[in-house]
Amino acid sequence: MHRLQYDLLIRTALLEDLGGAGDITTEACVSPDAQGSFALAARVAGTIAGLDLAALAFRMVDPSLHFTRIVQDGDSVEAGAVIATIEGNAQGILTGERVALNFLGHLSGIATATRAVADAIAHTKCRVVCTRKTTPGLRAVEKYAVRCGGGMNHRFGLDDAVLIKDNHIALAGSITAALQRARARAGHLVKIEIEVDTLDQLAEVFAAGGADVVLLDNMTEAALRDAVALVAGRALTEASGGITPGRAASIAETGVDLMSIGGLTHSVRTLDIGLDVVQTN
Amino acid sequence: MHRLQYDLLIRTALLEDLGGAGDITTEACVSPDAQGSFALAARVAGTIAGLDLAALAFRMVDPSLHFTRIVQDGDSVEAGAVIATIEGNAQGILTGERVALNFLGHLSGIATATRAVADAIAHTKCRVVCTRKTTPGLRAVEKYAVRCGGGMNHRFGLDDAVLIKDNHIALAGSITAALQRARARAGHLVKIEIEVDTLDQLAEVFAAGGADVVLLDNMTEAALRDAVALVAGRALTEASGGITPGRAASIAETGVDLMSIGGLTHSVRTLDIGLDVVQTN
Amino acid sequence: MHRLQYDLLIRTALLEDLGGAGDITTEACVSPDAQGSFALAARVAGTIAGLDLAALAFRMVDPSLHFTRIVQDGDSVEAGAVIATIEGNAQGILTGERVALNFLGHLSGIATATRAVADAIAHTKCRVVCTRKTTPGLRAVEKYAVRCGGGMNHRFGLDDAVLIKDNHIALAGSITAALQRARARAGHLVKIEIEVDTLDQLAEVFAAGGADVVLLDNMTEAALRDAVALVAGRALTEASGGITPGRAASIAETGVDLMSIGGLTHSVRTLDIGLDVVQTN
Amino acid sequence: MHRLQYDLLIRTALLEDLGGAGDITTEACVSPDAQGSFALAARVAGTIAGLDLAALAFRMVDPSLHFTRIVQDGDSVEAGAVIATIEGNAQGILTGERVALNFLGHLSGIATATRAVADAIAHTKCRVVCTRKTTPGLRAVEKYAVRCGGGMNHRFGLDDAVLIKDNHIALAGSITAALQRARARAGHLVKIEIEVDTLDQLAEVFAAGGADVVLLDNMTEAALRDAVALVAGRALTEASGGITPGRAASIAETGVDLMSIGGLTHSVRTLDIGLDVVQTN
Amino acid sequence: MHRLQYDLLIRTALLEDLGGAGDITTEACVSPDAQGSFALAARVAGTIAGLDLAALAFRMVDPSLHFTRIVQDGDSVEAGAVIATIEGNAQGILTGERVALNFLGHLSGIATATRAVADAIAHTKCRVVCTRKTTPGLRAVEKYAVRCGGGMNHRFGLDDAVLIKDNHIALAGSITAALQRARARAGHLVKIEIEVDTLDQLAEVFAAGGADVVLLDNMTEAALRDAVALVAGRALTEASGGITPGRAASIAETGVDLMSIGGLTHSVRTLDIGLDVVQTN
Amino acid sequence: MHRLQYDLLIRTALLEDLGGAGDITTEACVSPDAQGSFALAARVAGTIAGLDLAALAFRMVDPSLHFTRIVQDGDSVEAGAVIATIEGNAQGILTGERVALNFLGHLSGIATATRAVADAIAHTKCRVVCTRKTTPGLRAVEKYAVRCGGGMNHRFGLDDAVLIKDNHIALAGSITAALQRARARAGHLVKIEIEVDTLDQLAEVFAAGGADVVLLDNMTEAALRDAVALVAGRALTEASGGITPGRAASIAETGVDLMSIGGLTHSVRTLDIGLDVVQTN
Repeated sequence: MHRLQYDLLIRTALLEDLGGAGDITTEACVSPDAQGSFALAARVAGTIAGLDLAALAFRMVDPSLHFTRIVQDGDSVEAGAVIATIEGNAQGILTGERVALNFLGHLSGIATATRAVADAIAHTKCRVVCTRKTTPGLRAVEKYAVRCGGGMNHRFGLDDAVLIKDNHIALAGSITAALQRARARAGHLVKIEIEVDTLDQLAEVFAAGGADVVLLDNMTEAALRDAVALVAGRALTEASGGITPGRAASIAETGVDLMSIGGLTHSVRTLDIGLDVVQTN
Repeated sequence: MHRLQYDLLIRTALLEDLGGAGDITTEACVSPDAQGSFALAARVAGTIAGLDLAALAFRMVDPSLHFTRIVQDGDSVEAGAVIATIEGNAQGILTGERVALNFLGHLSGIATATRAVADAIAHTKCRVVCTRKTTPGLRAVEKYAVRCGGGMNHRFGLDDAVLIKDNHIALAGSITAALQRARARAGHLVKIEIEVDTLDQLAEVFAAGGADVVLLDNMTEAALRDAVALVAGRALTEASGGITPGRAASIAETGVDLMSIGGLTHSVRTLDIGLDVVQTN
Repeated sequence: MHRLQYDLLIRTALLEDLGGAGDITTEACVSPDAQGSFALAARVAGTIAGLDLAALAFRMVDPSLHFTRIVQDGDSVEAGAVIATIEGNAQGILTGERVALNFLGHLSGIATATRAVADAIAHTKCRVVCTRKTTPGLRAVEKYAVRCGGGMNHRFGLDDAVLIKDNHIALAGSITAALQRARARAGHLVKIEIEVDTLDQLAEVFAAGGADVVLLDNMTEAALRDAVALVAGRALTEASGGITPGRAASIAETGVDLMSIGGLTHSVRTLDIGLDVVQTN
Repeated sequence: MHRLQYDLLIRTALLEDLGGAGDITTEACVSPDAQGSFALAARVAGTIAGLDLAALAFRMVDPSLHFTRIVQDGDSVEAGAVIATIEGNAQGILTGERVALNFLGHLSGIATATRAVADAIAHTKCRVVCTRKTTPGLRAVEKYAVRCGGGMNHRFGLDDAVLIKDNHIALAGSITAALQRARARAGHLVKIEIEVDTLDQLAEVFAAGGADVVLLDNMTEAALRDAVALVAGRALTEASGGITPGRAASIAETGVDLMSIGGLTHSVRTLDIGLDVVQTN
Repeated sequence: MHRLQYDLLIRTALLEDLGGAGDITTEACVSPDAQGSFALAARVAGTIAGLDLAALAFRMVDPSLHFTRIVQDGDSVEAGAVIATIEGNAQGILTGERVALNFLGHLSGIATATRAVADAIAHTKCRVVCTRKTTPGLRAVEKYAVRCGGGMNHRFGLDDAVLIKDNHIALAGSITAALQRARARAGHLVKIEIEVDTLDQLAEVFAAGGADVVLLDNMTEAALRDAVALVAGRALTEASGGITPGRAASIAETGVDLMSIGGLTHSVRTLDIGLDVVQTN
Repeated sequence: MHRLQYDLLIRTALLEDLGGAGDITTEACVSPDAQGSFALAARVAGTIAGLDLAALAFRMVDPSLHFTRIVQDGDSVEAGAVIATIEGNAQGILTGERVALNFLGHLSGIATATRAVADAIAHTKCRVVCTRKTTPGLRAVEKYAVRCGGGMNHRFGLDDAVLIKDNHIALAGSITAALQRARARAGHLVKIEIEVDTLDQLAEVFAAGGADVVLLDNMTEAALRDAVALVAGRALTEASGGITPGRAASIAETGVDLMSIGGLTHSVRTLDIGLDVVQTN
């Protein structure tokens, strides 16, 4: 992920926090030449994502601050672990703190949840992927956090792959019609995925020429197993719908290639990270 | 909340989803003149927030679509309830669906969590408030969702009130010094709040002339009760830190005026809302 | 292509043309209540693309103008053909004219050049595609124009497919290494294409497990024929490099699935379209 | 031309190319610490323009890259000439390559075409100028490229000079009326130019008090000669309309002061410039 | 002046005023369905400019509001005069009030000051013009207000005319050198103005071939008279520097063609305009 | 005030001045390698504000320029005093001059006017505050300038405090109703101010429970004295409406806590600051 893809987002967040009058508390209470050394510490165990964003948030407030990574994005840490340190002008550090932590906590929360699923299915060939159920404006960074947690990305948008869902099928008239139209429109570098709810639908997909990926929606483990058998390697198989971390292992063991979990990005639990003073002068 | 405060956010979300090539699935599978009628239905019970944003997401894709509210922001609904309908050009509805639902689910998730706490403390005078631990770029709309859920807003940014926290006190040298500096800087329409961890600190606050609000950080119910007694109406009291929904009632019963919960906005569980086809032609 | 993907581009172009003082000629010479009816006429034969952009350029200047399409995007017209009419306030029409025509001429120029190649290879299964050699800021609309001309789109950006080129191979160490790394990184909906210059390289691609598409760079027709034979349907084949319209048919007849031509977008010859007065009052 | 006039354009182009997922090929195939040295080499002879933009494109991707100019904007080079080198982190170079080359090729294409005309008319006093038929959003940089090629700029927009064309005359009622209105509205630093098709119209211009510049539209060389004689130094004369490079010399020899050629910017042939690896490690 | 040139400015001003929480006073005190009819009334006499901006400010807040002009931009009104009425939803009117009045008062203040000078010199041929000493971001609208007041515009920026000032002359080496360089660089539609402080400098200008306009800086009326005589119609003459309204007539009577007054835009006295309630329900 | 709050404003101002063609005078007359040393000197006495903005304007044009402060924001200087020096590339200095001076003159004008009032009331406890009658887009920087002049800020927008004015009271029905509604809506960190015209209204305010601040609108000194007595310390008192610098002292002596003066920001007289050449080579 490139800095150009999130620098404006950080600027927006800082301006949102500065408002019209700026950080009146820090301006009042902290001397302009006070220096400080602070630690960003995880209050609970988790997987880290977003250090570049946190660093840029501080540097955008004050380019003279020193941000030092103790761990790297993708690393898992214990409760209490120091993730990074930030040193320099104390006003700048306090003004940037909330925005830096909001990004870091949110993305690390995503990475942590993804890591849990990825670990739970590590004994299978199955990969966990995210969806387009992301926070508006944060898709690229949230998908990056999923990768930090050991997950893989699904589509980034409506544009980079065809995904035919139930409503498309209804409006196209049939699975066969939808697949034919999609193949005629899709460029040579665009893959086609189609959602099915039943084995009958799945059979129709292959009768109609198949697809690159089939999304098996809201199926039981038994149905998933049957679907994998029916597909027989002719397409990638993706389980989706209502997949909780608790069910992840048993679903992965059905033989599906992928499982997608919207909750990785639509129901994020922030990773609690705090800013502790180390020294001031 | 005014439309000007979120219209650019919706535009950004739609462009993020359209990417370079646009909605290639819908363009391929759905006829440009197909019409449809769809229902936005809650899959689980909850409190709704964000209907204006969902409506604008659809209308920004296609101004000719008809969005009809069945309930209003702030209403609580049962699982299965239809929240709104959307009718018109089917391509437009399918292209706008994900962005509309991402906003509606996220904000309704916040409203639902807030409603649960507000209900749990309704037998007391205590009010639940949110924090600045919001999703970058979404603060104004998330704070609106808190209000929809019966909560009240804390500061919108660093600028609209003074909030002296532990690091400010450390850098100012003492509670007394921090309060004096803050009073000298704050305009006549700016309130001052200060965070304390102990009753001794609380006593120092009033020895130093007091504040408009005192934030009682990470205190037990017993300590909160003592703090409320010590304050004796000279300031508003706000409990904060590690407040779970389960503890909300017992905290409210200590007599504090306010409780702030970062999790309302930093750990949102989306409200599951789907788009069901009603009719197509 | 959705309006949200180009409306800001049109606004930018209008502001670029209005500058600080606005359209001082029209303000001076044309009465504010003068009405006019004008025709957009092709001075030469060609294929039209960009009518929505031209219409929006006029409407952004004056929402009360009436723009009427006589032909549709993708239609081919003879020299002299009227493409559309624009009626209403004469000041608005004259102020919007240049921006509307700049878009329409540029995109129709792309469509016209694409149409010529598409027609030349219509007797084969080969399809013509464009590249990322587009005008900065105009990629989405230029790729749309290619589709209007009967072409197909290659990648929209660095993000929607893997395309391993000579420099990537050099830096990865070998074709085999590059392919392995790409497969490990690419999501399940991302296709992989690789560029080769020789049949030996092509053989290495398949020895290393193959790719979705092979780009056959700067090969003679004879070499292309050999490459197609070697690939034997295991991947799509794309001819690229120095393909002029004159060579298009003979290249297509080698059996390649695709030919990519950068010149469709990097060396555009505008389609000459003028604004003729029909009536004024 | 100042950097502030194009930096946002380059940022837009890079984001357009990075899309949501970024440069997945380079991320996969090239080690993050690989270094490289590359040469930007002209595949054909031409005049260079846009080195600052190419340099900024690379530096925006990676500020640590070293871009070294071998030639300067405005220099003409032979086929095969190295124009500049770029050294440093290989990932950054490959990610920035296409955007840098798209700008450099486009602007050098304009400079090259302008240079050809400027050279063809160098034995006369006539100067070649561009028009407002520019690519939307790129006007300032395209007009800069025209200057690099030895051309001069016409109006930058509707605002910086009055140019009365046929439609303005029609709506004003007459050449005389149009000129009178223009003089009443134009500030003291604004020049007035008027388009005429015939010698009769030209005579009316001077009967009505004259103009700073007269645009002689679509006239034969003989007509241009007569027009120049009629003007007799009372205004600058500009030939316009259908001027091909082949006709440039004979038109210049008619004695006109200026010739304007829309094709310099509306029908650009990119200058083929490639990125060749010099060394990697 | 076109709406596209100021709509973003109005949006920015409204967002600046709405801040994070929006208009909390109006939301609290005024019923969402209250209707009102209000008058925009001048508290003092003056010349009006900016009605389109005021109207758009209200309509951007609430597109259903009705704004009715009683006078037009450029009209002079007495104290107490009603300028326009605004009717409809009372919340929208109160929320938009301050921004609408800030624009209207500021621009009318400029028009009023300009009108005073224009009237004072109306018995001469001299015209009053503004400068580039404008409020950052508001140049186009401030220059429009000058025109509403009967003034004329000087340069809109550094780009639309050459204006050689003392520092340019110092750095070029001499007036002669500066003029030669300027002529070589300036396009055929660009006028050249040069600033002189003395008659000797003025003589050097004409010895060096002259200019389109000469700016006579900080001269007494006697010196201006001599300068006008020396110029003898070979260029336009512009008096500048320390021109107060009180001196305007005597300066105009020296025979100069123009006088420029920075204070028209750099020291604006707002025209006091208030919003009076007419009726509510 | 943080740089992020004004950097885009400076960029906008520079682009507004550069227009399409840039600084053609400086490009023509000044050698690209000319160096210069210039002084920013006050032509009249005043209080300085905006040095950071002036410095950034120059550095945005050319990051290599050296800007050296001789005085600091908030300092008062005599006529002729050098405020800062700017050294380096002469082209960059001349191109940035106007924008830098426009900001510096405007903000110093505000600081100077504020300083005059602050000094006039320094013998009382009364503080001078500004209003929301600011220049669109410049509110944050203008309010900063007020602080530089020894003033205090009123609301930054509609969002950071409740201010109930006459129209709100009219629409709420009564002072009592307006206050009740405001208290129910306002967060715990939001103060409430209410405007009254008479002592009867003031009495109603306290009968209805009081407010944090009462705005005493357009009252005579005698009425203000009575109002202060009636309030008796139960709220802060703010005199407002038609307060001229000449009346400031006598108003302050009535015992009011605050006086607000719209003219500080809505009728700014620029502080005349010029750029004098010190040395060139």
